Amino acid sequence: MKCLILAAGKGSRLSNMGKPKPIIKLLGLSLIERVILTLYKCGIKDFYIVVGYKAKIVKKFLDQFSKKKNININFILNEDWEKENGLSVLKAKKAIKEKFLLCMCDHIFNEALVFQLLESKIGDNEIALCVDFRINNPFINKQEATKVLVEDSNIKDIGKDLIPYNGYDTGLFLCSPVIFDAVEESINKFKDFSLSGAIKILAKKGIAKAIDAGQQAFWIDIDDYKAYKKAEILLLEIMSKKETDGPISKYINRRLSAKITKHLINTGITPNKISFFSFLISILASFTFLLGKYTYLIFGGLLAQISSIIDGCDGEIARLKFQSSKFGAWLDAILDRYADAFLLFGLTIYAYNPKNPIPVLFTGFFAMIGSFVNSYMADKYDQFMQKEFKKIRDKKFIRIGRDIRVMIIFLGALIDRVFLTLLFIAIIMNIENIRRIKVLYQHQGHI
Amino acid sequence: MKCLILAAGKGSRLSNMGKPKPIIKLLGLSLIERVILTLYKCGIKDFYIVVGYKAKIVKKFLDQFSKKKNININFILNEDWEKENGLSVLKAKKAIKEKFLLCMCDHIFNEALVFQLLESKIGDNEIALCVDFRINNPFINKQEATKVLVEDSNIKDIGKDLIPYNGYDTGLFLCSPVIFDAVEESINKFKDFSLSGAIKILAKKGIAKAIDAGQQAFWIDIDDYKAYKKAEILLLEIMSKKETDGPISKYINRRLSAKITKHLINTGITPNKISFFSFLISILASFTFLLGKYTYLIFGGLLAQISSIIDGCDGEIARLKFQSSKFGAWLDAILDRYADAFLLFGLTIYAYNPKNPIPVLFTGFFAMIGSFVNSYMADKYDQFMQKEFKKIRDKKFIRIGRDIRVMIIFLGALIDRVFLTLLFIAIIMNIENIRRIKVLYQHQGHI
Repeated sequence: MKCLILAAGKGSRLSNMGKPKPIIKLLGLSLIERVILTLYKCGIKDFYIVVGYKAKIVKKFLDQFSKKKNININFILNEDWEKENGLSVLKAKKAIKEKFLLCMCDHIFNEALVFQLLESKIGDNEIALCVDFRINNPFINKQEATKVLVEDSNIKDIGKDLIPYNGYDTGLFLCSPVIFDAVEESINKFKDFSLSGAIKILAKKGIAKAIDAGQQAFWIDIDDYKAYKKAEILLLEIMSKKETDGPISKYINRRLSAKITKHLINTGITPNKISFFSFLISILASFTFLLGKYTYLIFGGLLAQISSIIDGCDGEIARLKFQSSKFGAWLDAILDRYADAFLLFGLTIYAYNPKNPIPVLFTGFFAMIGSFVNSYMADKYDQFMQKEFKKIRDKKFIRIGRDIRVMIIFLGALIDRVFLTLLFIAIIMNIENIRRIKVLYQHQGHI
Repeated sequence: MKCLILAAGKGSRLSNMGKPKPIIKLLGLSLIERVILTLYKCGIKDFYIVVGYKAKIVKKFLDQFSKKKNININFILNEDWEKENGLSVLKAKKAIKEKFLLCMCDHIFNEALVFQLLESKIGDNEIALCVDFRINNPFINKQEATKVLVEDSNIKDIGKDLIPYNGYDTGLFLCSPVIFDAVEESINKFKDFSLSGAIKILAKKGIAKAIDAGQQAFWIDIDDYKAYKKAEILLLEIMSKKETDGPISKYINRRLSAKITKHLINTGITPNKISFFSFLISILASFTFLLGKYTYLIFGGLLAQISSIIDGCDGEIARLKFQSSKFGAWLDAILDRYADAFLLFGLTIYAYNPKNPIPVLFTGFFAMIGSFVNSYMADKYDQFMQKEFKKIRDKKFIRIGRDIRVMIIFLGALIDRVFLTLLFIAIIMNIENIRRIKVLYQHQGHI
């Protein structure tokens, strides 16, 4: 399916940022890059972009992007970019003869919206707008947003100052070529050059549908600096979440890692390099433990916790910049296992007592094997839990994973109770492993 | 799709085995159970079985089986079971009105043949026979087999004493109801009650197709005691192979485990119990190491190797008795990780020198983490290798897995060189892990 992106306007309320609006950077990617990559991830491979204001600069930027990512981009020039955005749509009339997606370069959205639209079916002479019915959606600037009035999935009216209304225009459309006629009609009859004008006409004819954006939707219209800053905060918050995060990750590490990510995201650093850097800090921590003094122990514990926090950044950057890869996830997991083992081995040597070595060695061993097997079984267990218990019981289970282990090590180091720390880890990890075997045994038909 | 299984004959050449032929046991399952379970695994859910000789006994047996496995079985009685098998087919005329699979209770086959047939397309008035074109196939008793002459995928002639011929009748057919008419014609015109008679008629009309059984096919017609024993050997050999087996598994362990499996398969012991038993032997081995004397060390090494051999039986029995489960494979892997760690920890304590503990502890630690991570990464690495290198380079890579590790432990214990053993494992495992990271890094787009 083709996708038409409107990127011709000046975006004057953001003009103080020194760049044409489409190529303003937000968390490591320009606005239009994010729009394209989100759609690309949903399977859209063929892009038509209407450029106008500073067309040369925008085109040059996107040409490079297109080559680098090997994504097909066609440009359409709208020299009348000072007029409203309906005209930009109309410029694509010759290029697009079938159903297509239509979106704005300055509306950031997540994949949920795209899938809602792609799954919906419209007639050959209809259009559909993705509508957010969450009237009190905190993402939305109520004053600036385009409102819609929807009845029985049909758009009745649309406009910025509409009253009453029951949803917001997310800026994402599924169109048939009937939209071009509607823009022409709006221009000729009402001298209205806006896309909303065309939608109004289609609404009156009863052929403008509303598709619910759904509860998973995230979108934001970045039309001024305030919205830009809001988008930055929200995007970072949403993209830094991961379904399998344990409680320490969720409530502590992610808050800190998101802050680091915000600084790192505009550098060229890759997620894999961050994984490796976090790994090195863990190794450093475990060597610090080997030195055998309490001061070093505290320092090592702190390093371990810092490493655990930084370990969140690789995934955050990967998700924010669309750099996630199976290899990256695999490498991160492998390095985490080595890091875990080094930390526990470092603590074992710290607690090692030459006069009575056996208890410490056994405890260190059980902490290590317990932690390792815990990670080894996590993949399948998490899959199972997600499949079976998602709605019913998910919240009852605390996932005792790496975030908790490292936090225990950190706390144990702070209070200089290394043997107890190892013992605690050994006990909870192995008990948790046995519990998981039991859970999966009881539900073995469902794995 | 429905499946018709002929199980009415007396099978007089196997009558000395004390049971009606369909329910004679071969490696833990009766012949007909194996046929049904093989088909069931290929997605066939609806069975019609023609019984005749000792129908009550066979029916009772299959009724129980049907309930236990929750598989739908319908019975068709052929009182004239002393006549040839074409008549048994004809008895199903009323029950089956559409395309169906046809097979014999005494032809054991693997899934490859079924998939070949299911993927082939036949016309509404055609039948297809799965034909083995491997003329010198060692599975086949050339004297007894039914031969076929095939030209351009059409069966030209069929018969036991056919000359010339270029393939063998595997006993597996994809039929349309035209087969019933052909049997009737064969009986009425030629007084020939055999299925071959009907196929001959269809062959003459040019509507009997031959489908190549392919290179992955395994099948055997069990019509006398010699064939029964041959089937036992071949089935055990084939089912005990596993694609991811390392060299020690392949050339040593599997030969021994297959012998154990042959004895265990007729007991009720489940694969999971065998996994657990093998795990216990490993734990015993590691405790033996802890005792710290050379005699115990040898004994422990031997136990470790025995455990590694027995660890093959769970999978073999699971495959032979269609008891494979994701939970079973998962549990086996988890227990292997614990067993590995215990063995290496046992050796570390054996080699532990209180006067100079650090080298041994470090070496033991690296052997452990190296082995852990090796298993941790194996899944994804194996998947990748299978996908990318199957034909080109697979044979260049030796998979350094658990079979090799335990063999090294066994040999190291025999010659009382425990520290060197740990050092060797630590080095090869960690180098192998780094090599794998490198390989996957270089091919990361393909993971």
